[in-house]
Amino acid sequence: MSSSFGHLFRITTWGESHGGGVGVVIDGCPPRIPISVDYIQHELDRRRPGQSKITTQRKESDSIQILSGVNEEGLSLGTPIMLMVLNEDHRSHDYNEMQEKFRPSHADFAYVEKYGIRAWQGGGRSSARETVGRVAAGAIAKSILANLGVEVHAFVKRIGSIEADVDTNTVSQPVIESNMVRCPDPIAAQKMIELIEATRKDGNSVGGVIGCVARGVPSGWGEPVFDKLEADLGKAVLSLPACKGIEFGGGFLMTFQTGLEVNDEFYSEGPDKQVKTKSNHSGGIQGGISNGMPILLNAAFKPTATVLRPQATVDINYDNTTLTGKGRHDPCVLPRAVPMVEAMVALVLVDHALRQRAIMLD
Amino acid sequence: MSSSFGHLFRITTWGESHGGGVGVVIDGCPPRIPISVDYIQHELDRRRPGQSKITTQRKESDSIQILSGVNEEGLSLGTPIMLMVLNEDHRSHDYNEMQEKFRPSHADFAYVEKYGIRAWQGGGRSSARETVGRVAAGAIAKSILANLGVEVHAFVKRIGSIEADVDTNTVSQPVIESNMVRCPDPIAAQKMIELIEATRKDGNSVGGVIGCVARGVPSGWGEPVFDKLEADLGKAVLSLPACKGIEFGGGFLMTFQTGLEVNDEFYSEGPDKQVKTKSNHSGGIQGGISNGMPILLNAAFKPTATVLRPQATVDINYDNTTLTGKGRHDPCVLPRAVPMVEAMVALVLVDHALRQRAIMLD
Amino acid sequence: MSSSFGHLFRITTWGESHGGGVGVVIDGCPPRIPISVDYIQHELDRRRPGQSKITTQRKESDSIQILSGVNEEGLSLGTPIMLMVLNEDHRSHDYNEMQEKFRPSHADFAYVEKYGIRAWQGGGRSSARETVGRVAAGAIAKSILANLGVEVHAFVKRIGSIEADVDTNTVSQPVIESNMVRCPDPIAAQKMIELIEATRKDGNSVGGVIGCVARGVPSGWGEPVFDKLEADLGKAVLSLPACKGIEFGGGFLMTFQTGLEVNDEFYSEGPDKQVKTKSNHSGGIQGGISNGMPILLNAAFKPTATVLRPQATVDINYDNTTLTGKGRHDPCVLPRAVPMVEAMVALVLVDHALRQRAIMLD
Amino acid sequence: MSSSFGHLFRITTWGESHGGGVGVVIDGCPPRIPISVDYIQHELDRRRPGQSKITTQRKESDSIQILSGVNEEGLSLGTPIMLMVLNEDHRSHDYNEMQEKFRPSHADFAYVEKYGIRAWQGGGRSSARETVGRVAAGAIAKSILANLGVEVHAFVKRIGSIEADVDTNTVSQPVIESNMVRCPDPIAAQKMIELIEATRKDGNSVGGVIGCVARGVPSGWGEPVFDKLEADLGKAVLSLPACKGIEFGGGFLMTFQTGLEVNDEFYSEGPDKQVKTKSNHSGGIQGGISNGMPILLNAAFKPTATVLRPQATVDINYDNTTLTGKGRHDPCVLPRAVPMVEAMVALVLVDHALRQRAIMLD
Repeated sequence: MSSSFGHLFRITTWGESHGGGVGVVIDGCPPRIPISVDYIQHELDRRRPGQSKITTQRKESDSIQILSGVNEEGLSLGTPIMLMVLNEDHRSHDYNEMQEKFRPSHADFAYVEKYGIRAWQGGGRSSARETVGRVAAGAIAKSILANLGVEVHAFVKRIGSIEADVDTNTVSQPVIESNMVRCPDPIAAQKMIELIEATRKDGNSVGGVIGCVARGVPSGWGEPVFDKLEADLGKAVLSLPACKGIEFGGGFLMTFQTGLEVNDEFYSEGPDKQVKTKSNHSGGIQGGISNGMPILLNAAFKPTATVLRPQATVDINYDNTTLTGKGRHDPCVLPRAVPMVEAMVALVLVDHALRQRAIMLD
Repeated sequence: MSSSFGHLFRITTWGESHGGGVGVVIDGCPPRIPISVDYIQHELDRRRPGQSKITTQRKESDSIQILSGVNEEGLSLGTPIMLMVLNEDHRSHDYNEMQEKFRPSHADFAYVEKYGIRAWQGGGRSSARETVGRVAAGAIAKSILANLGVEVHAFVKRIGSIEADVDTNTVSQPVIESNMVRCPDPIAAQKMIELIEATRKDGNSVGGVIGCVARGVPSGWGEPVFDKLEADLGKAVLSLPACKGIEFGGGFLMTFQTGLEVNDEFYSEGPDKQVKTKSNHSGGIQGGISNGMPILLNAAFKPTATVLRPQATVDINYDNTTLTGKGRHDPCVLPRAVPMVEAMVALVLVDHALRQRAIMLD
Repeated sequence: MSSSFGHLFRITTWGESHGGGVGVVIDGCPPRIPISVDYIQHELDRRRPGQSKITTQRKESDSIQILSGVNEEGLSLGTPIMLMVLNEDHRSHDYNEMQEKFRPSHADFAYVEKYGIRAWQGGGRSSARETVGRVAAGAIAKSILANLGVEVHAFVKRIGSIEADVDTNTVSQPVIESNMVRCPDPIAAQKMIELIEATRKDGNSVGGVIGCVARGVPSGWGEPVFDKLEADLGKAVLSLPACKGIEFGGGFLMTFQTGLEVNDEFYSEGPDKQVKTKSNHSGGIQGGISNGMPILLNAAFKPTATVLRPQATVDINYDNTTLTGKGRHDPCVLPRAVPMVEAMVALVLVDHALRQRAIMLD
Repeated sequence: MSSSFGHLFRITTWGESHGGGVGVVIDGCPPRIPISVDYIQHELDRRRPGQSKITTQRKESDSIQILSGVNEEGLSLGTPIMLMVLNEDHRSHDYNEMQEKFRPSHADFAYVEKYGIRAWQGGGRSSARETVGRVAAGAIAKSILANLGVEVHAFVKRIGSIEADVDTNTVSQPVIESNMVRCPDPIAAQKMIELIEATRKDGNSVGGVIGCVARGVPSGWGEPVFDKLEADLGKAVLSLPACKGIEFGGGFLMTFQTGLEVNDEFYSEGPDKQVKTKSNHSGGIQGGISNGMPILLNAAFKPTATVLRPQATVDINYDNTTLTGKGRHDPCVLPRAVPMVEAMVALVLVDHALRQRAIMLD
């Protein structure tokens, strides 16, 4: 029971990989917001399987439908917006052996332990397909944020040991989308693509780090003490499949340094004395509240669990056995996870924009 | 508006560092649980200022009172438990310059931007003093977990570059508490203490990493898709002051590796075919659900913002100036943050224990 | 932003009368519950327009689809269940004049004031069509309750001044469904039908009272102090279209009496000393908690706002004018509201069953 | 687990009648609101026992303390406000027989059934003393509403069969407070006082109806579909001790009438074409949203359960017995319930004011 996320701008996702479809209900979208089906579809296409040679080769068209909450002129009504993608016919025979055996490090064992029942086909609710609803809702969130002067950009920062050089002050979607791995550093991108291809040929998988920047966030968003921006952004991103870590600003690296090295000195400039910081080790967040600087975070995504090589495991009777994965799986989730991270960050920021607005009575 | 945390075992903290006091309301504590004031006080003493030479030298007795929810025999009634520590008289003159100027990387600038009003004395709600309520509630959570066979242990894993060698399968409170830095590796502990002392003498501050293990968690806790254990634990710990990152199991390190290296192979043993994993890179969580292995996490705490050396900043009129911190501050928050991390982890686990119980109709 | 209801068994409805469809996401349904499409459809048919001569003559087939959360054997997976009814083609020309003018006592004026935008066709989100999702979810809730020994029965108790004689200890669905007005008293039912028909011919509308009994609820459900059973049941039923009042047990009538007259004396009987009350003016709820006696409530439904006679009103430019309603409207909402009340009561009871289960650690 | 109420302006109450005290945490109060201890105390004095000869003669000073969330100038900080009244020494020997036996229609039996443990002294959490926190928080809510041009007035409308004549367009606190029964009709008030006194001498108790009006509420507050104003106000008021019914506008009476009789015709007047309704059977709420007219509701309060005459009941071993109540109890809860109803209505309205503000992006 936790398919809803957000306090005022609240989404509820539904759907398994092999049921009737997947989708999302967005409750709390302000009225009279232009909702573009094309833009939502564009974002969904970024997370779609089969989009390039380095993602899974499953073909899914993922064509979005809006069933409520938007009028004929494409404006939000203030009522719940239901967005849906129907599932297509699927080749379930790929999964035969995985029906009988648990994949190491995959969610299916834990799901059976929790629910006492298994939707074995394709991973059920733990499938990345669940994120269709998140990305669709995130597209609307990004539209609202754009009107508030806020832009959110996620990108692949590292695959395995190949790290990109990225300027978070300028990075934007065109350069991120300029290559299939969604890394804004073209030299690193090429190496990453080669690594992913080699990994797939080897039947193995690889992980990495996705970076994200939100520029234009005004100071004052974030709700102490439990809904600090780090806390809500952390929860949002850590709820994505395969995400096992997150850090803000200087993050883990900052723990090797001293206060004098990483404190962000304030200064003001211009006739309106706008306050900025000289450095941004805080990642735009202090005391859980935005301070007007760009919000910066990195998220760790582990290597895909499903590999096409034999591993020890147990079967559904909990007897010891060996499993060799089959089927069309992503050897690296990061390229498709980029729009997912963007969506989750945007959802948190819109929610906090509305929350901050609510308390400003004057 | 976010001083509450948890879905079924729900806490609401209140209080500033320089108001009447700080405390917590625990709503949803099951009835007939023995509540030990001594144990709560013991946990509070672990987070108390002035407890050793490496923490702030402010003296606060932090004596806990229970005002509701517990009967005369010390059993919980099922009704809200209110726990409170009154504030003592305080030397507010320490803060005079900080009343007029914003500390770099401290929360006070962002608070003013958010609320348009300042409780300048001692940090107000952003003070670590707010965590009194968390630690008190966490003590009750740990008591409930102990009855369920679950124990939670946090410890200092690294200060600056000094890293401890810790066996998470055996680490426990006696060894953690055997030194003032709360590091279970005595050799590293000694070096850490020396580093913190040197840092304080230098007017500087230092950060590090706190590790935490929860042993005995059964499989099946955690609620996909938004309240996955990583998501809820991440939010919980990232809501602590100075925490800027979290990782589970193999975490960021795992992103340099391949699936074949980090997948946790299952095996079963014994007459009841108990399933375990050979390695635990998943940190006991797969698909957001506990898998029966120990839950493992690391949390990054940045160096304390307040340093006793001059830094550029702005004053409350947003004019450029310089500030030299004064007063008795922790040069390193980690020793006192250990019980805070334990508390937040315990609160999440109890909440999920109750949530899992609710859906098991048979 | 409030299309969700419930704490552990939580529903989120979506959809307008004239968009793509209407539906519901059920989050928190326990796993391995048999879900019968036929039973859900049966309940939807009870609330369907055009079912008899005393309801609106609009024809809607309201055919339910399950898109997620249920496996091929018809068992719940523990994941969100999405239930949907697509909208059919509609004769929107009926609504031409109502597009330009506000119906007195109808929701459309308030919606425009709130959202600054109008989904004029058919009432949008304020339409009774929104209750499709509630009734569908309620059918699942009733199935779960049946397994717990709880049955919920709503019925028409009064239309205008015609009051039925109903024994809440025995009333059940067969006798309630034995006539089109859903009144278990056949003599009153006949008079009610005649009144509704005469009212419709007159272009007028009429209100009344729906009674509801939940038998078999064990003692101990309900959560003081804000989620008392009266509070949650009250909110649930008052959220239905046209409902303007609710009372429990003796209700308003009891306020004319004294404590000695209405106190429910306890007695115990049998070898296990089962406690009951001699009377049930409390309606099975004391201190907000069920006491083991049948839960009794009455809900007041006002006459339908849309009447086919001229009334003064304002147009969408807020100029004074006159409107004569047109189209096929229910002259009396009560027969179709019976399954809605049942659904809302069942949803509250299932939620509290799970909540009570969560706190019982021993 | 339900001691919290509200979505953005959220209160959490704590405390039993015979523990350390009672209080409330208010989370989400906007910053920079003047908080007057005197005004809060004034409201608490209206609900205090022993205030007049027709209430219980227990003496409790109920002196409020503010422990957090307010600065030295009396302005809210935006952080949680904790308000507390310590309990005084109590004469628990009054309750000896009631320690062994359950009072008919009182909450104590249901509490024991729910929690398996008993705080027998004085009713524990089910005591009206729990409402101290509600009334204190309601005073702050009323202050905020006053700044928004909204005033909330509750009053005794009927005691037993004695009904007052009240003009809800003009009724205000001075006339309500002009007599000890809080009925704005002086002739009815006198009769009510006599009835209550006679009832007390008889060892009996009596119930009645409290009316409430909120004037100045702008159109557009209320959140369809589950947080309609009727739903949230209904839940709020029905959560008060002894409340067993609520109705809005024409309420139950309206169910005897036809649409043409009770529809509220719109008209506009003045240069800005302000829209009003000729009648107000809707009670200011249509489709769950305020329409700009006064919000009107009536709440039914049953006779106090505790009477000083013998009644059949069971003891704590569930054996049949007889109990004669003792102690100082209110023979009629309504005079003291007036400020409670006002508080709950004000809390709902402030919450919805903030919620409506959040979605108005332009």
